Amino acid sequence: MKLSDLTTPALVVDRDKLDANLATMAAVLPGTKLRPHVKAFKTTALARRMADLGHTGFTCATVREVEGMAAAGLGEDLLLANEVLDARRLGAITNARVTVAVDSRETVDAAAAGGVREVLIDVNVGLPRCGVDPDKAGALADYARSKGLEVRGVMGYEGHVMLVDDPAEKARQVEECMSLLLKASADVGGDLVSAGGTGTFEVNTYANEIQAGSYCLMDTTYAHAGIAFEQALTVLSTIISVNEAGWFVADLGLKALGMDHGNPTIPGASVWYCADEHTVFSADGGQFAIGDRIRVWPSHIDPTIALHEKMHLVDGDDVLETWDVDLRGW
Amino acid sequence: MKLSDLTTPALVVDRDKLDANLATMAAVLPGTKLRPHVKAFKTTALARRMADLGHTGFTCATVREVEGMAAAGLGEDLLLANEVLDARRLGAITNARVTVAVDSRETVDAAAAGGVREVLIDVNVGLPRCGVDPDKAGALADYARSKGLEVRGVMGYEGHVMLVDDPAEKARQVEECMSLLLKASADVGGDLVSAGGTGTFEVNTYANEIQAGSYCLMDTTYAHAGIAFEQALTVLSTIISVNEAGWFVADLGLKALGMDHGNPTIPGASVWYCADEHTVFSADGGQFAIGDRIRVWPSHIDPTIALHEKMHLVDGDDVLETWDVDLRGW
Repeated sequence: MKLSDLTTPALVVDRDKLDANLATMAAVLPGTKLRPHVKAFKTTALARRMADLGHTGFTCATVREVEGMAAAGLGEDLLLANEVLDARRLGAITNARVTVAVDSRETVDAAAAGGVREVLIDVNVGLPRCGVDPDKAGALADYARSKGLEVRGVMGYEGHVMLVDDPAEKARQVEECMSLLLKASADVGGDLVSAGGTGTFEVNTYANEIQAGSYCLMDTTYAHAGIAFEQALTVLSTIISVNEAGWFVADLGLKALGMDHGNPTIPGASVWYCADEHTVFSADGGQFAIGDRIRVWPSHIDPTIALHEKMHLVDGDDVLETWDVDLRGW
Repeated sequence: MKLSDLTTPALVVDRDKLDANLATMAAVLPGTKLRPHVKAFKTTALARRMADLGHTGFTCATVREVEGMAAAGLGEDLLLANEVLDARRLGAITNARVTVAVDSRETVDAAAAGGVREVLIDVNVGLPRCGVDPDKAGALADYARSKGLEVRGVMGYEGHVMLVDDPAEKARQVEECMSLLLKASADVGGDLVSAGGTGTFEVNTYANEIQAGSYCLMDTTYAHAGIAFEQALTVLSTIISVNEAGWFVADLGLKALGMDHGNPTIPGASVWYCADEHTVFSADGGQFAIGDRIRVWPSHIDPTIALHEKMHLVDGDDVLETWDVDLRGW
């Protein structure tokens, strides 16, 4: 199958870039030093490529992602790095090792009531989101153990540090965050100290596993921050209309593109706006004609992927494989 | 089933508001004077509610929407109000009347080659998007007829006028746009003059059918513009984490919310930001606790719906029906 055979809009992944990104990361963080975050790509076929490289533990953000990974036979060690108040579906998974993050007595109670056996204490290391205060992590671990749960350790996501520009400042902030996590780890016990992401994987030498996911396909924002991975994912689109007054219309819009980081990028063009199923742009050096197929760079990959059913692995004009984006939904 | 039984995040539609919106519109534009646009809700069960009220012709934005409506037995008169360069899947639909918009010789050729029999000339009436220049519409119709296609008339979407605040100014601009469309209609021939949307349905008295879709569930932006429909759709979410420093975390984020119009709204709260699966907010009069279920107003409904598999029709705490969002994708 060729690119020209695909129905547009379509997610297209360049194999060379993907495999280069996977190899780069595996060299720095081999095996279980990386716990890839599947939320970034929501596709078990891509996760399997990571498992084949030795990354056999995975991070998930939703119950559906955990279920899907287990169903795909990738359930050796699945961490739901998020809080849930109803853990019954997690407890019902029989063919995987499932660990869930907890940051309150309520989420501990939910884990125990749902039949989950293992938890990680989610510690707030500075990002205003989930996580117990570091100085209360030990007490929460004690509470979890009192409910019969195995506490495997701690996690803490330094998300607010991912895009700090200056390397020295980033390293300083990561150290600050991780000192909180290591202190909590000493109080909590267990083996795991799980943290980090694509923006900090090189400087976070404190955690013993890193939860990066974006690195494999890479995001425009991360790319601008000078992180050494290649942008491997584009959205293939068709030019469906050309107006003599100087604009062009491509057949992808708000339902094919994550828009929280703004408009997509079209090489050789200036994007005017996106509508539900259209992107309108003017030429800015590029040549465009009705029927042309173009590659569009979404501004944020994760929510872009969540809008698509399929992802196509390509080499030049050849479509090598078509993968189901099978971890969507909740 | 009760609201508390739903997995969150979940699309929830208040039946009373939905039915009030449907009745309000049907009173103004009965039967085929309205050609509801299914892109707004992507759910055949909701389209069937409209058909039951007498709106038996529908507008679609994608080939998949046309296929899905035909498969659901709602194919009496389906208009794909968008350009396609590959019409073979449209031509293969046997159980529906399918008309496709064309605005160039290339799209006419694609319709003919794909086996589509009926087209509408898409006329640019001022919005920089698709549509042939009004003074070239007649020649394009001639070309379409020379290719053996039946030309049913014209369409022209005055999208740039939808949110004009001043009623008199809006009416003036609609008249201006529609004078272009009516002139093109005179050149093109055929019966249909299709235009309009939720923002102009009352003042667009020039078209003989209106393509409104948002009216049934309503959007925050439209609601702010003073258009007389009720917001019927919210996203049900669970509070999964509370921090003593003064913030709360709900379990919906960039993958459950269309973000092109910005952050969602939570009554009684100030939204700080959305992450992939989280919305972080502070209380602003409201009371929130871990495990609480809240209703969140997305800033743009259409792309929000495209992220969900199901939509639940509710009456208070009772879940009356669960519908598949079965028109997603392309």
